[in-house]
Amino acid sequence: MFQTGFDTLLDLALSEDLGPGDITTEPLVAASHEGYGEIVAKEELVLAGLDVACRVFEKLDDAVRLSRPLADGVVVQPGQTVLTIEGALRVLLAGERTALNFLQHLSGIATQARRYVDAMAHTSTRLVDTRKTTPGLRALEKYAVRVGGADNHRMGLYDGVLIKDNHIAAAGGVDTAVTQVRQHVSHLVKIEVEAADLDQVREALAAGADVIMLDNMDLDAIKAAVTLIKGQALVEVSGGVVYENLAALAATGVDLISVGALTHSARAVDLSMRIKKCD
Amino acid sequence: MFQTGFDTLLDLALSEDLGPGDITTEPLVAASHEGYGEIVAKEELVLAGLDVACRVFEKLDDAVRLSRPLADGVVVQPGQTVLTIEGALRVLLAGERTALNFLQHLSGIATQARRYVDAMAHTSTRLVDTRKTTPGLRALEKYAVRVGGADNHRMGLYDGVLIKDNHIAAAGGVDTAVTQVRQHVSHLVKIEVEAADLDQVREALAAGADVIMLDNMDLDAIKAAVTLIKGQALVEVSGGVVYENLAALAATGVDLISVGALTHSARAVDLSMRIKKCD
Amino acid sequence: MFQTGFDTLLDLALSEDLGPGDITTEPLVAASHEGYGEIVAKEELVLAGLDVACRVFEKLDDAVRLSRPLADGVVVQPGQTVLTIEGALRVLLAGERTALNFLQHLSGIATQARRYVDAMAHTSTRLVDTRKTTPGLRALEKYAVRVGGADNHRMGLYDGVLIKDNHIAAAGGVDTAVTQVRQHVSHLVKIEVEAADLDQVREALAAGADVIMLDNMDLDAIKAAVTLIKGQALVEVSGGVVYENLAALAATGVDLISVGALTHSARAVDLSMRIKKCD
Amino acid sequence: MFQTGFDTLLDLALSEDLGPGDITTEPLVAASHEGYGEIVAKEELVLAGLDVACRVFEKLDDAVRLSRPLADGVVVQPGQTVLTIEGALRVLLAGERTALNFLQHLSGIATQARRYVDAMAHTSTRLVDTRKTTPGLRALEKYAVRVGGADNHRMGLYDGVLIKDNHIAAAGGVDTAVTQVRQHVSHLVKIEVEAADLDQVREALAAGADVIMLDNMDLDAIKAAVTLIKGQALVEVSGGVVYENLAALAATGVDLISVGALTHSARAVDLSMRIKKCD
Amino acid sequence: MFQTGFDTLLDLALSEDLGPGDITTEPLVAASHEGYGEIVAKEELVLAGLDVACRVFEKLDDAVRLSRPLADGVVVQPGQTVLTIEGALRVLLAGERTALNFLQHLSGIATQARRYVDAMAHTSTRLVDTRKTTPGLRALEKYAVRVGGADNHRMGLYDGVLIKDNHIAAAGGVDTAVTQVRQHVSHLVKIEVEAADLDQVREALAAGADVIMLDNMDLDAIKAAVTLIKGQALVEVSGGVVYENLAALAATGVDLISVGALTHSARAVDLSMRIKKCD
Amino acid sequence: MFQTGFDTLLDLALSEDLGPGDITTEPLVAASHEGYGEIVAKEELVLAGLDVACRVFEKLDDAVRLSRPLADGVVVQPGQTVLTIEGALRVLLAGERTALNFLQHLSGIATQARRYVDAMAHTSTRLVDTRKTTPGLRALEKYAVRVGGADNHRMGLYDGVLIKDNHIAAAGGVDTAVTQVRQHVSHLVKIEVEAADLDQVREALAAGADVIMLDNMDLDAIKAAVTLIKGQALVEVSGGVVYENLAALAATGVDLISVGALTHSARAVDLSMRIKKCD
Repeated sequence: MFQTGFDTLLDLALSEDLGPGDITTEPLVAASHEGYGEIVAKEELVLAGLDVACRVFEKLDDAVRLSRPLADGVVVQPGQTVLTIEGALRVLLAGERTALNFLQHLSGIATQARRYVDAMAHTSTRLVDTRKTTPGLRALEKYAVRVGGADNHRMGLYDGVLIKDNHIAAAGGVDTAVTQVRQHVSHLVKIEVEAADLDQVREALAAGADVIMLDNMDLDAIKAAVTLIKGQALVEVSGGVVYENLAALAATGVDLISVGALTHSARAVDLSMRIKKCD
Repeated sequence: MFQTGFDTLLDLALSEDLGPGDITTEPLVAASHEGYGEIVAKEELVLAGLDVACRVFEKLDDAVRLSRPLADGVVVQPGQTVLTIEGALRVLLAGERTALNFLQHLSGIATQARRYVDAMAHTSTRLVDTRKTTPGLRALEKYAVRVGGADNHRMGLYDGVLIKDNHIAAAGGVDTAVTQVRQHVSHLVKIEVEAADLDQVREALAAGADVIMLDNMDLDAIKAAVTLIKGQALVEVSGGVVYENLAALAATGVDLISVGALTHSARAVDLSMRIKKCD
Repeated sequence: MFQTGFDTLLDLALSEDLGPGDITTEPLVAASHEGYGEIVAKEELVLAGLDVACRVFEKLDDAVRLSRPLADGVVVQPGQTVLTIEGALRVLLAGERTALNFLQHLSGIATQARRYVDAMAHTSTRLVDTRKTTPGLRALEKYAVRVGGADNHRMGLYDGVLIKDNHIAAAGGVDTAVTQVRQHVSHLVKIEVEAADLDQVREALAAGADVIMLDNMDLDAIKAAVTLIKGQALVEVSGGVVYENLAALAATGVDLISVGALTHSARAVDLSMRIKKCD
Repeated sequence: MFQTGFDTLLDLALSEDLGPGDITTEPLVAASHEGYGEIVAKEELVLAGLDVACRVFEKLDDAVRLSRPLADGVVVQPGQTVLTIEGALRVLLAGERTALNFLQHLSGIATQARRYVDAMAHTSTRLVDTRKTTPGLRALEKYAVRVGGADNHRMGLYDGVLIKDNHIAAAGGVDTAVTQVRQHVSHLVKIEVEAADLDQVREALAAGADVIMLDNMDLDAIKAAVTLIKGQALVEVSGGVVYENLAALAATGVDLISVGALTHSARAVDLSMRIKKCD
Repeated sequence: MFQTGFDTLLDLALSEDLGPGDITTEPLVAASHEGYGEIVAKEELVLAGLDVACRVFEKLDDAVRLSRPLADGVVVQPGQTVLTIEGALRVLLAGERTALNFLQHLSGIATQARRYVDAMAHTSTRLVDTRKTTPGLRALEKYAVRVGGADNHRMGLYDGVLIKDNHIAAAGGVDTAVTQVRQHVSHLVKIEVEAADLDQVREALAAGADVIMLDNMDLDAIKAAVTLIKGQALVEVSGGVVYENLAALAATGVDLISVGALTHSARAVDLSMRIKKCD
Repeated sequence: MFQTGFDTLLDLALSEDLGPGDITTEPLVAASHEGYGEIVAKEELVLAGLDVACRVFEKLDDAVRLSRPLADGVVVQPGQTVLTIEGALRVLLAGERTALNFLQHLSGIATQARRYVDAMAHTSTRLVDTRKTTPGLRALEKYAVRVGGADNHRMGLYDGVLIKDNHIAAAGGVDTAVTQVRQHVSHLVKIEVEAADLDQVREALAAGADVIMLDNMDLDAIKAAVTLIKGQALVEVSGGVVYENLAALAATGVDLISVGALTHSARAVDLSMRIKKCD
């Protein structure tokens, strides 16, 4: 479905790979040759990005025939086929790398998100992403996070309020900041305030924050903050979160844990494409 | 400097973060407030991407004043400042995340490339990247690879010939394939042929390949291939390369080792921005 | 400041007026002729759109010199100058109509919004806009609404949840719908539910809606709904709102009144540009 | 049919409403759900914009099935269906607002144009629009004017010559101005000259103007000008025209009356979309 | 000055030459090296395209310093410098080819146009171009035609009416066609009708055509047509015009002669750039 | 097939011809009228550009039906049909000029290339193009060169190395220049060095150049250079090449002759479109 900037990104991606044309394939493969391709997982992974992979081939040639034996979100085993493509052999070879690059990147994010979510599945804490995404791919990466079972923080600076130290300094205090923002933003938007210690937590609470972000606090401070806030606002932990301390952080009873690595440091998973010429 | 698609990517990146506007900052920070920001390394890293980070702020406001105490390629220590920005506080807050996302991603690639290159620095083998890049960021990621000290394989399908099994099948043989391509491509382009075993190496040699890619061969086969080829063509190893076997592979005397992980699986490094309001 | 799509809209606007060039001015006005222009109000109005008007001229020629005696949001009297432009006479003539078209349209919206807001200024009810905006101009029109003193509802389908009858039918009930959405959206987003009668209001309340939209209800039903909801959710009135019944609706104690006419039916206000050739 | 900038405007319009995605619909409506929608008039109106409304849905999904019981230009009664759409329910909900915004705006212009034209239908004077259009929508708005029965003045600065006071001053006189322009423009373009009083009318006539625009003259001056010109040039009245004085102005025998309000101040007419889920 | 599509064309042109970067210059020329370049004529030519050449360099780096000893329209002798550029040596090398390609192409058109115009300078017949232009370059090529001293026919299908045989067939007759078009187009647009023989000339005259195009008629027929039309309409000769018969055709007294070769078959003239590194 | 920038160029080309619409056809031809068109050669030519011509019509309306009796590369005789188009008459008239402009330009280049190639067909020297192409059309023009039987030099600055005097000066010598570039570029790229005399040829050889370009040397110097190089590098002749001296230059035994006129000065060949209305 339509997504702002999606076609622009696909055009960029195809352009950077194809440029003025595939100089190996053009002299060797006639335009009339048909081919059949299968994209296959080479390791266990959580699949994400089939729509994008399909659009890559459709953009090159809308006569291509695509079939999807599996769906985004499924755990795929090595050797399983996730997408088949039939059409001009030239089109298969032209789209192969770009489609795989999307699938490997997005499935890599979904796979890692699933692993992180599983580590805290026994709690009711939500794992959320951040704005630390690869430039140009935010909507896709945040989609992959959802596919993996984690949740999204705000999309950008435009759809959620997060008041940080610089904002508070500019406004002259947390209280003024929250009040001023509340008067200007849509009634559908909640206000989150960043706090670095318990005093700031108290101020944020008093200012009426809907959500309080505990920024780089240690475990004891987090526990104290949770006790202090007691359901008057949502509590988010941010900073210094790694896979190893997820369970301990979730056990404090915070509502949300945000992790930049969900999007900025996931390893690509391995998928490849087998192509056969049909005659 | 100019690069095809570069401005499009920057617009995408700013758009996805700013959308119709920063709803936190707009009500709190007056357009006239000036600010000063420093981008600081939080860990040891090889710096890459300063030009992009600067363009992010310049795109938002060309009145911004930028200063670069360090240059791309330098090993930066935690706490060192890599870029300072002066201008409207709104502009600093608007560009912060996008500039950091570029720097963290590209410096992450450069840092990892440096580590890989160091592992084989005692040999004359070149480490090269692949087309397994993040869609839309290829030119930037390949730049970061160079900054890290590794080298680039072809940019895309348009600037280098790599004849694979599907091409050979379509052409009806390696020999025909090489001949046909040679007749069609620019005289400035070399021809690389993929080989899966020693027989195919022999065929590629006979066909006059300029470069032979040993695809997923084991160490013994690689050694045999190097002996066989003896300077008649460049030799590239590809597939199954990890950091741990780089030195051993390089020791076989191959000319080139290509590694997809250079671009598709580098961890982002940590940088952050300290902002102060000036009055 | 940066806004997604803003430059695209400006390019469209300049393109549709200038096409391949101004065939009257080109043969009559030398490129070297300097001019001085003043944009003047021809009626009382609330000014909105100065940034856009300035960008129109800067896009044509960044050597143009602009001065703004007044600011957006000010009530301007007939005869007052709101912007002066110095530069090539060709540039002034090329940008005149496009700059005025933006200013007349956006100031028209701000002027009308101010009048509507004044009609309910004695209450604490907020007047908000809708998604019924001129295609391509939403962010600008919503900005003009804010300049006029009214507030914004959500920007689009992406930054606020509004559950309507079709969504409820698809989900199989209000309760399920609210629960399912809550699980998927960011924790910073509130959930609004549309209700057509008091039964639906009760269901929305029970489902935990953050905001309830009373859709096309009469005054008595609205009063009953306000009593029923009593601070458990925000209440928005929508549908059938005209200038004449604003005060009566606000008097019911609802939190929000939304009016499509704020953006889709404001009359353009009159501004013109006086140009003098300088020699 | 193709129109410069049309797809850009549609992309802008869809982008500003959908952004990174419809956060209400995505969790509630499965991609496989089919729906059926009808766009219905809620008041009497002259229909304009069906092509655009159709393109909105086709852009989202070219598998959508559209049917048009009525055509642009028809007077539609409240309750009549003007367009039906079948396809994925997600697509219907995604395109609804944008399609309606176009239809309401363009039909609003056509409806008002029809009313103005009717007021002077007993005369042979043509009613024409101006360049006072909503930025980015000029071609569409001028189309709606034609649908309503009025005519178009020039599209922009590129397809018709209108010599104003600044041009005359720059050229050093009307006569020189007309001569110089005539030498440079295509032989298919007529030359119109603006005149503020009878002396200027005489000069324009002497200079060989094809059309003379009487700018903000009163009724007596207009009559005198018509007598003076007597078929030697077309006569256009501009400035100060409102619905109420259209008939009187037309009765003077002028050839053309231009009215900015045709495009810049038409009220949107009311249409809505009824959607049903199909299972 | 602004021109629809101009920046898009420049971006295309720079993109196709620079792609992801200049692989020769990047390793050899430091970013800090300054250079000085002169664009010099290598043959006699009529200069056209200086604005475009300047924009090429400014797009690459707005810090570049440009100086123009000569202006468009001047007859330049071999060895004369038409533009000097100072700035980063990398920028000079990056823009060189694109700037020259524009200058050589446009000056080639202007030079040829001047030669054609000179051949009929003793008559009052105007030489005009056609829509047979290089795709994407129409506005620039038509500008070069004017610089050369010839005139422009309509820019495209949107700014002038030319009724051809297919239109007449569709309308059911010349008379109907002219009447129908006159009712729909702006009052500023003239109507030209194509005629293949004298009968069609008579019909066009009777229908009230403003201009009559004699399509592929021989010299005798043209003379007869001129006699027939005698100032009741403008007369244009089209088809079969070559440099050699220009004078004879002009001598018939026709108002206009149109020649496709003016834009589609001009030889590029020779200019080159001398670059010096400054240290 | 996909090509960077191709759709952008087509949009530019259609935009510049159609603008806001075809004002002749709109009032005369109903949207429902069907038509049939044939594109016919008016002179002998080598056909090039059918794909582009087809895309022009498909972009206007994807319901158009196209048939190609002939293929690119064929020698077409006057009167032969190269493409037929069926669909809405409006679409045929809208695409006619743009499709023809592409075909005439590209076939003009192919036709001329064939003539040049034939002049040296008895030798083994390859004829290659340059970067002297029409801005925005490089990939298409270089395609037409291949269709004509000649070969392509590098596409741009990004896919082949050509070291010129300025590079050598910046590097401090040919030897350093070649070494530095070799270390930085992909192993698939060959290095060409420009030489103005035999001394420079010797230096380039010593530096290990893969290709040596003899720049503007006379026939004797070229022969001497060929003797000197004797298969140690490829030899290219550049500068001062015209149709008349091709055979003599090829007879010297050089590997490559490059000619700018192949792309920048080919005459357009004549094709036209016959359209019939179908009822």
